[in-house]
Amino acid sequence: MISFASDYIAGAHPRILERLAETNLEMLPGYGSDRYTDSAREKIREAIGVPDADIFFITGGTQTNQLVISTMLGNTEGVISADTGHVNAHEAGAIEYTGHKVLSLPGKDGKIVPETLKAYLETFYGDENHEHMVYPGMVYISWPTEYGTLYSKAELDAISGITQEYRIPLYIDGARLGYGLMSPENDVTLQELAAFADMFYIGGTKVGALAGEALVFTKHNTPDRFITQIKQHGALNAKGRFLSVQFDTLFTDGLYFEIGRHGIEKAEKLKEIFRERNIPFFLTSPTNQQFVILENSSMEELSKEVEFSFWEKAGPDRTVVRFATSWSTTDEHLAMLREILDRVMG
Amino acid sequence: MISFASDYIAGAHPRILERLAETNLEMLPGYGSDRYTDSAREKIREAIGVPDADIFFITGGTQTNQLVISTMLGNTEGVISADTGHVNAHEAGAIEYTGHKVLSLPGKDGKIVPETLKAYLETFYGDENHEHMVYPGMVYISWPTEYGTLYSKAELDAISGITQEYRIPLYIDGARLGYGLMSPENDVTLQELAAFADMFYIGGTKVGALAGEALVFTKHNTPDRFITQIKQHGALNAKGRFLSVQFDTLFTDGLYFEIGRHGIEKAEKLKEIFRERNIPFFLTSPTNQQFVILENSSMEELSKEVEFSFWEKAGPDRTVVRFATSWSTTDEHLAMLREILDRVMG
Amino acid sequence: MISFASDYIAGAHPRILERLAETNLEMLPGYGSDRYTDSAREKIREAIGVPDADIFFITGGTQTNQLVISTMLGNTEGVISADTGHVNAHEAGAIEYTGHKVLSLPGKDGKIVPETLKAYLETFYGDENHEHMVYPGMVYISWPTEYGTLYSKAELDAISGITQEYRIPLYIDGARLGYGLMSPENDVTLQELAAFADMFYIGGTKVGALAGEALVFTKHNTPDRFITQIKQHGALNAKGRFLSVQFDTLFTDGLYFEIGRHGIEKAEKLKEIFRERNIPFFLTSPTNQQFVILENSSMEELSKEVEFSFWEKAGPDRTVVRFATSWSTTDEHLAMLREILDRVMG
Amino acid sequence: MISFASDYIAGAHPRILERLAETNLEMLPGYGSDRYTDSAREKIREAIGVPDADIFFITGGTQTNQLVISTMLGNTEGVISADTGHVNAHEAGAIEYTGHKVLSLPGKDGKIVPETLKAYLETFYGDENHEHMVYPGMVYISWPTEYGTLYSKAELDAISGITQEYRIPLYIDGARLGYGLMSPENDVTLQELAAFADMFYIGGTKVGALAGEALVFTKHNTPDRFITQIKQHGALNAKGRFLSVQFDTLFTDGLYFEIGRHGIEKAEKLKEIFRERNIPFFLTSPTNQQFVILENSSMEELSKEVEFSFWEKAGPDRTVVRFATSWSTTDEHLAMLREILDRVMG
Repeated sequence: MISFASDYIAGAHPRILERLAETNLEMLPGYGSDRYTDSAREKIREAIGVPDADIFFITGGTQTNQLVISTMLGNTEGVISADTGHVNAHEAGAIEYTGHKVLSLPGKDGKIVPETLKAYLETFYGDENHEHMVYPGMVYISWPTEYGTLYSKAELDAISGITQEYRIPLYIDGARLGYGLMSPENDVTLQELAAFADMFYIGGTKVGALAGEALVFTKHNTPDRFITQIKQHGALNAKGRFLSVQFDTLFTDGLYFEIGRHGIEKAEKLKEIFRERNIPFFLTSPTNQQFVILENSSMEELSKEVEFSFWEKAGPDRTVVRFATSWSTTDEHLAMLREILDRVMG
Repeated sequence: MISFASDYIAGAHPRILERLAETNLEMLPGYGSDRYTDSAREKIREAIGVPDADIFFITGGTQTNQLVISTMLGNTEGVISADTGHVNAHEAGAIEYTGHKVLSLPGKDGKIVPETLKAYLETFYGDENHEHMVYPGMVYISWPTEYGTLYSKAELDAISGITQEYRIPLYIDGARLGYGLMSPENDVTLQELAAFADMFYIGGTKVGALAGEALVFTKHNTPDRFITQIKQHGALNAKGRFLSVQFDTLFTDGLYFEIGRHGIEKAEKLKEIFRERNIPFFLTSPTNQQFVILENSSMEELSKEVEFSFWEKAGPDRTVVRFATSWSTTDEHLAMLREILDRVMG
Repeated sequence: MISFASDYIAGAHPRILERLAETNLEMLPGYGSDRYTDSAREKIREAIGVPDADIFFITGGTQTNQLVISTMLGNTEGVISADTGHVNAHEAGAIEYTGHKVLSLPGKDGKIVPETLKAYLETFYGDENHEHMVYPGMVYISWPTEYGTLYSKAELDAISGITQEYRIPLYIDGARLGYGLMSPENDVTLQELAAFADMFYIGGTKVGALAGEALVFTKHNTPDRFITQIKQHGALNAKGRFLSVQFDTLFTDGLYFEIGRHGIEKAEKLKEIFRERNIPFFLTSPTNQQFVILENSSMEELSKEVEFSFWEKAGPDRTVVRFATSWSTTDEHLAMLREILDRVMG
Repeated sequence: MISFASDYIAGAHPRILERLAETNLEMLPGYGSDRYTDSAREKIREAIGVPDADIFFITGGTQTNQLVISTMLGNTEGVISADTGHVNAHEAGAIEYTGHKVLSLPGKDGKIVPETLKAYLETFYGDENHEHMVYPGMVYISWPTEYGTLYSKAELDAISGITQEYRIPLYIDGARLGYGLMSPENDVTLQELAAFADMFYIGGTKVGALAGEALVFTKHNTPDRFITQIKQHGALNAKGRFLSVQFDTLFTDGLYFEIGRHGIEKAEKLKEIFRERNIPFFLTSPTNQQFVILENSSMEELSKEVEFSFWEKAGPDRTVVRFATSWSTTDEHLAMLREILDRVMG
C-alpha cells in the first residue's frame, strides 16, 4: 500500500547506502574516533558557518533531546517548550526521566510566541518566591515544528534575544531541518539558524539517513566529558562509522539540501492536491508535513488504500490527519494519491 | 594499518548491506511495527526454541543493558554483577544513572563463581538489617565475558538454580553470543542458554551488524508498556526496519552462526600465532577476544604497525593487550600479523 | 513584629512539647518501630475509620509527596495535578527529580474541575498514539488547596469516581487538613475523605507539630518494602519517636481537630477584619489562608508593621498577598492587626 | 528493658527541649531564614574556625549525604567510599538513587587506607580507557566510622593531600562527630578536621538532638541555588527553627562537646565491663560504639534482658553485636548491664 504516513517510511537515500557499502571493509576505530567522523564534522562546520563548532552523531531525535537537555541543565533547572513541543508531548517523559521539568508555554501553531516567553520570564523573576520553583534553564524550539510550521528570522531573532537577555541557552530541534531550509516560505539560512542557536541538531533520520542526528554545540558550550555522558545514556555507538559515513555523505555535494528540496517540492504538489479537492487544512504548513481535516467516514475509506497518520480529533465527526513527504516521495506516489482521493472521496 | 583492536572495526556483513539495499524502498511503518520485525522475531524464536518469547531490537549493548535492568528492577533493588562485568566497569555508570546500584561480586576470569553468589545471597537474607540495604534484584552475567571466557553448562545451571531459588531473574549479556556458541570449548546450545536466562540479548553490533541487539524476554516477563519505556530512554528508532532487516538477515540461512564460526576459526589461528612465538596469554580465552601480555617496549614498537587494545597494566614493564577477531578477519590479516610479529619482536 | 505570614511561624502546640518532654528518657527503638508509632497509628486508624490503613510518619510535605508519587507511579506514568498544585508549582521540581512528569490541568480556584479531568482522560485514551506519551498514573489534589479552597463532597465523589473508572489512584495532600475539616463550609468528614482517597496525608507541620506528616495508605496499597524506599529517599528518621509522639498527641483527646477549629475561628475573624475595611479578596477561601489584594503602596507601608506573604502580582499597581492563621493565632494578634490596618490604610 | 542498641534510643538532651519550649511562641520566618539559623551558624563558624563557612541544617544523615553527594558530583562522577561506608552499605542505595555510583574501596577497620586510595586514583588515570568509566568525583569518609574507629590526624592529612592532588573534594560524614572529638585516642581538633574537609556535617541526631545535622561547606563551594536543591530533595523544613534552635543550643556553652565527653566516658566504662568479663572485642573502637563477639546461645539469653544491635555473623556459632552509649547513658544503666552479664553469662 502507498504510504504518506511519515517521512521515515523508506530506508536511506541510495547514495548513503552506496557509501556505507564502499567504506564497509575499511578498518576504523570505534566510538566516533574514525576519520569519517572528522570529515563529516568538518563539512558540517563549513555548511553552518561555525568553524569551531563541536559536533556529535547520535542515533535518534529523542535520544539527542534527552542528552542535550539533561546534560546542560543545572539540577534546579527545567526546559521551556511550547505545549505541543516534542519533548513535552511525545517523548514519553524522556526529559522528566532525567530529573528535569518541561516548563510548557501555550504555543501558537506549534510555536512559542516571543511575547509569551518574555512575559513568562519576567513573571518568574518578578516573583520573590522562586526559590521553591523550577528555574528556566533552556528554551527548546523545534524548527520546523511538530505542525510543520517555521519560525521566521524575526521570530528566531526575538527568541534568541530573550534567551541571551536571561542568559539561558536556546536549543533548536532540527529533526526536519532540511525540509525547513528548503521551504519557499523560509527566510533563514542555515548559518543564521546556527548563529541564533546555542545548540541544535541537524536531523538525519527524517531527512534521508537510516538513522542519525548531528548534534551541534555552537558556542564552546559542550558539556564536560561529553563522550562519557553519551556512553552513560547508552547512546554511544561502537561502530560510530555507521553514523559518520551517513552524515559525511549527506554533507557531500549538497545532498542534505537536495533531499530537503525534493521533499518540499513533493509537499507543494501534495498541498495542491488537497486544495484542488477542497479538503480543508488544519493549519498552513510550509514544510513536508501537511495536516488536513477529514470526515471520519472518508478517513476510514481512505485508510484502506493509503497510509497517513492520525493526529487528533477535530470534533465528534472529523479528524486531523497528517500526510508527509520525504526524499523518497515520487510523482507516481502523488498520482496514485490523486486517483485514490478522487475515487474514494469524489 | 591492519587492526585487531576490536570486533567492531569493520562495517556490516555484506549480506546485511545487500538486504538493506534490497528492502530500501519498501514503504514500512515505523517504530518496530514493520513486517521485518515480525519476521526477525519469528526466526529468532525458532532459533532459541522459545515460541512465545518477546523480542525487541535495540541499537546498542549499553542501551540494552540499561533498559532491561532499569525497567525490571524494583526501586529498592540492584543488579548483581562480577566486578569486571561491563555494567559495573565500562558503561560509565549507565545503571546507576537510572537509580540502581550494581552489587559487584569478586569474579574469576570475568565470571561470577556460583558459590560466591550463593554465599552473598545467604548472607544478605541472613542479615536481619537488610531493610537499610539494596536488595539483590537480578543477576547479570555476560556470555562470553569481557575476558572472552565462557560459563559452562554446569555453571549456568548452578547460577540459574540459585536465581530461581531466590526468585530473582537471570540476565545474560550476549554482546558476543555468536562467538561463544561457536567456540570449540562451548558445551551449551542456544536453546539451553535461552532456557537458563530470564532475559538475554543476542549481540548484533559485534557479530556482523552495523548496530543492533536483539533483546529477548523468555518467560512472559516483559516490563509493562515496554515500547513506551524504550521511547522514554530515547532508544526507539523511527526507522525500526534498520534493525529488523539486519536481524532478519542474520537469522536467515544461519548467517549469525556462520559469522560466529568464522570469528572463532580466525581466533584459533590467532592463538596459534601467539603460542608459536611464546607470547604469554593473560588468561585462556576460548572465544574471539585474546588477551596477551607484552613487554612495554615491544608493545610500543608493535603499535606502529598493527592496532590492538590496551587492557590493563601487568606491572611496571608489561601490559595486557587485547586482539580480537570478527566476521571480517581474513587469513591475509593473520599472515600480515605473523610477519609483523616476527619482524618487530623476533 | 506580628506575623500572619504563614501557619508555620510558631513552634509546636504546647501539649506536643509537653509529651516530647515526658517521653524523652524512654528507651525506644529507632526508625519507626517504637511504641508511639504503634499507638499513633492506631488512633489515626480509628479517627479515619480505616482499621487496616498503613500509616507512616514523614518529616515534611514535599518529602511525603515525592515519596508517595515516585514510589507508586510506574515508569511510564505521571501524576495529574491542577496547574496551581503544590507538586506542580512550588516544590522545585521534586516530582520530576524522581523521573516523573506532572501532568498539569488548568484549575479553578486551585481545584481540578471534574469535567476537565474526565475530558483529559477520555482524550488521552481516545488518542491512538499514546505509546509515545506519559500515561496518567495518579491524580493529586490538595485539600484544602494552595488557595485555601475546598473540594465539596460532591466534587470529591466525582473525582474519586473518575479515578476508579480509569483505575488510577487518588492522592490527597492534606498539609492543612485540620483547617479544612473544621471549616464552616466543609461538608466532608475525615472518614469520607479517607474513603475517597487511595492515599492521603494528614498534615502536622502546619497544624501544630514541629514537623511531620502522617502518610496513610487506605487500600492495602503500600508500595513494596516501603521502609527501604523511605530510607532511600533519605526520609527515615533514626529517632522516629520524634514524629510518632507528636502524632500520638495530636490524635489524643481530639487535639488535631481542636487546633483546626482554633485556626478557623481566627480566620473567620480575620476575614471580618478585611471585609469591614473593604479590602478586596482575591478569592473566597473558607479555610485558614486568606488572599487579599492590596495597592502596592499600602502593601509596602503595611509590611513595615506586620508580616504577610507575597503571592502574585495583580496588575502593575496591585498585589495578591496571603494572611494565614494557625493554632498560635490569638485575639490579641487580630486586635493588633486591626489597629495597624486602621492606622496605615485608614 | 534497658537498651544499648544505639545512640538514638533516647530523645533530646534536656537543654534542647527547654530551648524549644522557651522559643516556641516566637514568630519566626520559615525555611531557614529565622534568627536562630543565623545564630547557630555563627556559633558553629566560630567553633570550627572557618569564619565564612556556609552552613545548612538538614533533618537526617542519609538525607545530608544524599544532598551533598548528588548536588556536588558532576554527571559522570561517582563517590569513593570504604566498602563499609554508610553510603555504600546501609543507605538503601540513596546515592545511586540520585544517579551516581559509589566507588567502593576495600577498607580496614571501617577506614579507607590512604595508599589504597592513591593506588586507585593512579590506576584510574593511568588507564587510557577511562572515557567509559565512572570518574572519581569525591571522597567520602565517616569520622568516627561505622565501626567506631577514627582516622588519625596523619591519616586525614594523607587523604586530604591525595584529594587535593587529584582536585576532588573530601567529604566527612560526622554523624557521631562529637564522640570522636572527645575520644581519648583522638588527635584531631574540630578546627583541623574542618580544614581537612571540603564539606562535612556535624551530627546532631546521634549526639543529643531530636533530629538534625549541620552541613558545612568550608571552601566557598556550596552548590548553586542550594536552598532550591534542598527543597527539590524534599529536605527543606517549613519550621526551620526546629533544627536551628537545636543547633544553637548544642553550640552554646559547649553542650555539643559535653555530650560527646559524656558518651565517651560511659563507653570507656562499657569497654571495661567487657574486658573484665573476657568478652572479646571484634575490633578496637575508641568511640561510643563497641563491637563484641558473643556466642549465639549467650546472645539469645542476653537479648531477653538488654537491647543491643546485631551486626554480622562471626562464623556459625558466634555473632558480632554492637553496644552504644550516648548522652543519655547513665552509671545506673552500666550497673544494670554488669549485673545482667554476670547473671546470664557468668
